[in-house]
Parts: sequence; C-alpha cells; structure tokens
Amino acid sequence: MEKRIYNFAAGPAILPEEILLEAQKDLFALPGVGMSVMEISHRSKTYDAIHQEAKAGLKKLLDIPDDYSTLFLQGGASQQFSMVPMNIMPPKNKADYILTGSWSKKAMKEAKRVGTVNIAASTEEEEGEKKFFKRIPKQSELKLDPDAAYVHFTSNNTIYGTQWQIEPEVGKVPLVCDASSDILHKKIDVKKYALIYAGAQKNMGPSGVTLVIIRKDMLERCQDTLPTMLNYKTHADNDSLYNTPNTFGIYIINLVTKWLLKMGGLDKMYDLNQKKAKALYDCIDQSGGYYKGHAEKETRSLMNVTFNLATADLEKKLIDEATKAGFNGLKGHRSVGGLRASIYNAFPAKGVEDLVSFMKDFQKKNG
Amino acid sequence: MEKRIYNFAAGPAILPEEILLEAQKDLFALPGVGMSVMEISHRSKTYDAIHQEAKAGLKKLLDIPDDYSTLFLQGGASQQFSMVPMNIMPPKNKADYILTGSWSKKAMKEAKRVGTVNIAASTEEEEGEKKFFKRIPKQSELKLDPDAAYVHFTSNNTIYGTQWQIEPEVGKVPLVCDASSDILHKKIDVKKYALIYAGAQKNMGPSGVTLVIIRKDMLERCQDTLPTMLNYKTHADNDSLYNTPNTFGIYIINLVTKWLLKMGGLDKMYDLNQKKAKALYDCIDQSGGYYKGHAEKETRSLMNVTFNLATADLEKKLIDEATKAGFNGLKGHRSVGGLRASIYNAFPAKGVEDLVSFMKDFQKKNG
Repeated sequence: MEKRIYNFAAGPAILPEEILLEAQKDLFALPGVGMSVMEISHRSKTYDAIHQEAKAGLKKLLDIPDDYSTLFLQGGASQQFSMVPMNIMPPKNKADYILTGSWSKKAMKEAKRVGTVNIAASTEEEEGEKKFFKRIPKQSELKLDPDAAYVHFTSNNTIYGTQWQIEPEVGKVPLVCDASSDILHKKIDVKKYALIYAGAQKNMGPSGVTLVIIRKDMLERCQDTLPTMLNYKTHADNDSLYNTPNTFGIYIINLVTKWLLKMGGLDKMYDLNQKKAKALYDCIDQSGGYYKGHAEKETRSLMNVTFNLATADLEKKLIDEATKAGFNGLKGHRSVGGLRASIYNAFPAKGVEDLVSFMKDFQKKNG
Repeated sequence: MEKRIYNFAAGPAILPEEILLEAQKDLFALPGVGMSVMEISHRSKTYDAIHQEAKAGLKKLLDIPDDYSTLFLQGGASQQFSMVPMNIMPPKNKADYILTGSWSKKAMKEAKRVGTVNIAASTEEEEGEKKFFKRIPKQSELKLDPDAAYVHFTSNNTIYGTQWQIEPEVGKVPLVCDASSDILHKKIDVKKYALIYAGAQKNMGPSGVTLVIIRKDMLERCQDTLPTMLNYKTHADNDSLYNTPNTFGIYIINLVTKWLLKMGGLDKMYDLNQKKAKALYDCIDQSGGYYKGHAEKETRSLMNVTFNLATADLEKKLIDEATKAGFNGLKGHRSVGGLRASIYNAFPAKGVEDLVSFMKDFQKKNG
C-alpha cells in the first residue's frame, strides 16, 4: 500500500483512510452494479439511493428539521456569496454582514452588487490599527439592523484561525452562515439558522459540491426572474437533480456521513476535535513565547491552528523540516504568512501528537 | 475484479476501463505524494501539474489556438445556458438560437432573461405538425441576424439522437456551441467558434466539471457588474483557480486526454465512432422496419442512437431482456420514449457488436 503522510492542508483536505479504501475498492465497479459510481446515470436507482442516503445522513447528524431543504449544488461557497443575496435579499434589499476575515469580505462584496450592506461588526482594524482579524466580535459589539433581510457570518475563518464559539444572537432576523470550514465539526442548532452553506472540501468530501441547508420559508423570496440554475427554488423543487449534480462528490459525502455516524456522531467528533486542538494550543502556550498564536484565545478555531515564530526565516526552516518529516501543508495562507495546521474531523489525533513532539524538538534545537 | 456490464447510459456515462483502473490504483495515495488526489490543495504543485496537463491535453487534441482560454467551471451546461448570455450578449442584447432539441430550448429560455432571442431555425414542428426534432436544419433554412451578438447551437442532441455533421456557417457573427454530448468525438475547427462549452460527464470525465473554451476577445464583453463567479473574466484571469475547482473531476479529465492521445487522437476516435455507429444503424436499417430510427438519416448522431419498435410493450420487453443480458441504460429519455444506445468514445466496439447480435436475435424471436 502506498505510504501516506500527515496532511495539514486547509482544503481540499484530509479524508478518513477507511473511506479512501472503500472508494478505492469500489471505483472500478460498484458491487452488484457493474459500473463505476462515476459512470452511473443520476436518474438511476443506484445513484438515487446514494443521493437520498447522503441527505438522510446529514439530516441525522445535524438534526435538520423537516422544514429545511438539504441541497447539493456546485460552484463552491464563492458562488453562494452571490446566490444568497440574489435569492434572499429581496424585497428589502439590505442585509447585515459581520466581517471576520477574507471570506466574509468576499461574501459582502457580492452582496453589494444586489443591495445595501450594513457592516454589523468587523475585526479587521481596531482604533485605526490593522489587527488582521485576530478575533471574533462580541455579541455586544454587533450593530444589527432589526429590519435587515438577513445577517451573514462566517463560522470559522481558515486563514486567521478564529471561530465563533456560538452563533450570534440576531433576534427574528434570518441568520445565514458560511460554514465551509467547520460544518459537521460539532452539533449546531440548525433551527437558529435560515440558511447554512458549505463547500464540501474541508469536512465533508472532495471539492466540487456545495451543501446548502435552507429553511423553506426562504424559498418564497426567490424570484422567478433569477437565472434558473441560480435559483434555490429550482434545486429545492428538483431535489438537487434539476441537472446532473457532482455524483462522485455526493457519493463521498455519503461515505463521510456514514463514517461520522459510526464514529458516534457529532458530539463525539466535537470532543475529539477539542482534544486535538488543545494539544496543539497547549504546545504553543507552553513554549514561553517561542510559538505565538495568531488568534485571541477565546476565539481560537478548533479546525485551523495559526501561529508564528519570531522570524520568517525560522518559520521557513520549520516548514521545510516538517515537510521532510512527513507533515504536509503547514504553510500559512499567503495573505498572512506564518504557519497553519488544519486539523479537520478526519485528521488523526496521532498526527497532532507527532506534530507537537516535532515542534518541541524544533524549539529545543533552534531555541 | 468486479464484473462490469455494457453501459449505454446517456450521461454520466462510460469511462475507459484503463482510466478507472489507474484512478483506482492511485485513489488512496498518489505515488510519491502520500495523499489522495481528492485531498491535495488546489494551490499545490502536484495539483497544478494535473491542471496544466489537462489543459495542454485538450489544447493538443483540439488544436485550440493561443487566443482562446480553456476553463474548468462548475454547474454543468445548464449554468452555461445563463452564463453565455449574461457575459456575451451585451451590449447588443440580441442573439440567434437554433433549436434542435430540449437542451437548445432550455438554453434559449435563459437567454430570454437577458435579451431578445431570434429563433434562427427550429425542427420541433414543421408545417404545424410535431416532428420531435427529428433532424438538424439545413444551412439554407437558417434565418440569421447578421447583427446578432452570437449564434447558439447544440452540436449533438442526446434525447433525439441527431447531430450537426458540420457546424453552421454564420459569417462574422460569433458562434457559440453547447458540445456537451459530442466534444472530443472528432476534431473540430475551433477557430470557427467564439465559445464552446461542455459538461464533462459524457466524453470527458465524471459530472461536476464544465469545460469552456472561449476566444479571448469575447472576454471584453464580460461586464464587471456580473457576479464574480459568473464572469468568464474571473476564471480566465485566474486560470480556473479563483476558487477551488472540482479537482478530482479535472484529474479524471487529464487521464481521459492522455488516453485519447494514446489512442491516436481525435481523427482516430472519429473513425472508431463512425464504425461503431454504422454497425448499429445498419442493424436498424436492415431490420425491414422492425427497428425504426428516430432521426433522419443525414442528421443521425454518432453518439446517441435512438430507435423505436412497433409498440411500447415490445420496447419494454427488449429493454428488460437486454438489461438481464448485461446491456444497461438502453431506455430512451422520458420525454420521447423508445430506445437509446449512447456509444461515446469510451464505449467498446465489442459492446456494439454484442448489442447488434442481441437485437437480431430478439427480432428473430419476437418478429
């Protein structure tokens, strides 16, 4: 069997080994079907069973209520940045955006093409100084418009390594969340949300599928004048089969939901994720300042651990040596530099332990 | 090894067995990389090599000139139905559509949301009678507007089994083609086209990737007011890496282009495709009317062979017995009924021979 390394990439990201093995076993021909899952019609019984199982698995894991539609779309979260305002900003044509990183800013940019955006909070700068989104704003800081069409936030910020510990309170205004980088890492109360979207390529599967969970009353806002493929109603009315979906991607998502259920569900995953993140943050906090976490402690992400060393040279040295030792993808995002260890659901605890040992060792040798 | 059957599905469709075997071998971890192709960052060197190779392979196969951009998008041809008029119908806001089936009608519907559509020809009805798109219109029948922003046509019609034998002559007006169901089945003269789009799931790979080949002067028409993800310029400027593309799908497309080059290129494929289609059409034509082809002879498709028997009962019987004998996916599209054998590039000549024997045998027993 081909040797595998530790994959700390931010996304597309690591998948559970047993899923890779199952998909590999069946890739030539699904047992009893005689065709690869890539080759079967999206209108076939075989594919329909996969499609329905994937939806049912997500529904079970997240306790998605019956008055929500679960959709499998394409185009990534980036396409949702446009679809959300095009579909649900009218008729008010104004919405609140909470800015906690590059992705929320991109989402806001697209919303501005549709209507008026109120920045309910931003942690990019504070008192005129660049803070590089080091934290999530406090509830008391949010300047919400009670008449907004919706409030948009990004639950986890891959680039900065911050994460909402609990979703913002927005009263009766519909809450919209880009959960691309932490969906399924713990149970959330879906009832609090009007719309959740997430690219699959971090915690759910390969790139090329976007999950959208939308409360059905939101569909009434979608106007018939929208391009057919950009209208949520098209996809809700056709069970995401208006046209050919990314069938292979949805097949992998189905395997991931089964794996999560077998692992004990999302409460169990949350427990594991907390333990993994704690091990890494403890290493950083106990390094006497050798490693410096980027995010403020109370708003640290369980998915993406971002940190710096004293100099860019030292950071480069660590990344180079780590790569040689089989720890891949530790380089921070080009926009902020430093290091980032992405430790999604599928990332093994053993990999975190090994990285911690490596980092302690590196500090000893280069302290 | 799991037994495989003959897969006549219209799409997602058959892939070459050797590609399935290679993808299977490497699915757990790409050799020397230690990660599955599904897990690697779209910004990594490993993925970039795949991305560039896939583009170069298509360029070589189709002789794509340098003044064209080759893009890998998402959302299928259905999303292109909207993106084409949103991007290149302005500023004239009028375009010609040639209607040869359900897909061209759907494309026209989306164009009408953007501007004025002139139906340059339609073979749906003739002299007030339903003809179910039995043929492709002749050049002399086209009522083209010399001032149109573009002319749109569908090169092959999966549902009706018709195909343009050569692209329409449109003078200086930009020609736009939905080539979803026959791309790469033969060499075409790309220089005659301003824009070609194609979902991958028939002749190129799994569903979830859309190929767009666009002449660069068309990008000047794309307005900055468009949603970022729906603007061709976004994807051309970022080499289809503005956001995460469907990396696994593009990986398979790369394997398909390599396979096509190894097979001898598109002239060789065209030869093979003609032979396969001829075997089936000969069986139909020599059945003394037992099998009746849907499409008019001169406009028959090399990709989708559509035919009927005398009664729906007999058709059902043939489909049932064929399915039991290992011929899958022969049922015609729900909108027209009858039978359809999709015999794309990857479909083996032996499978066609076996189907012909089966059909002759069926006729003998049920004649």
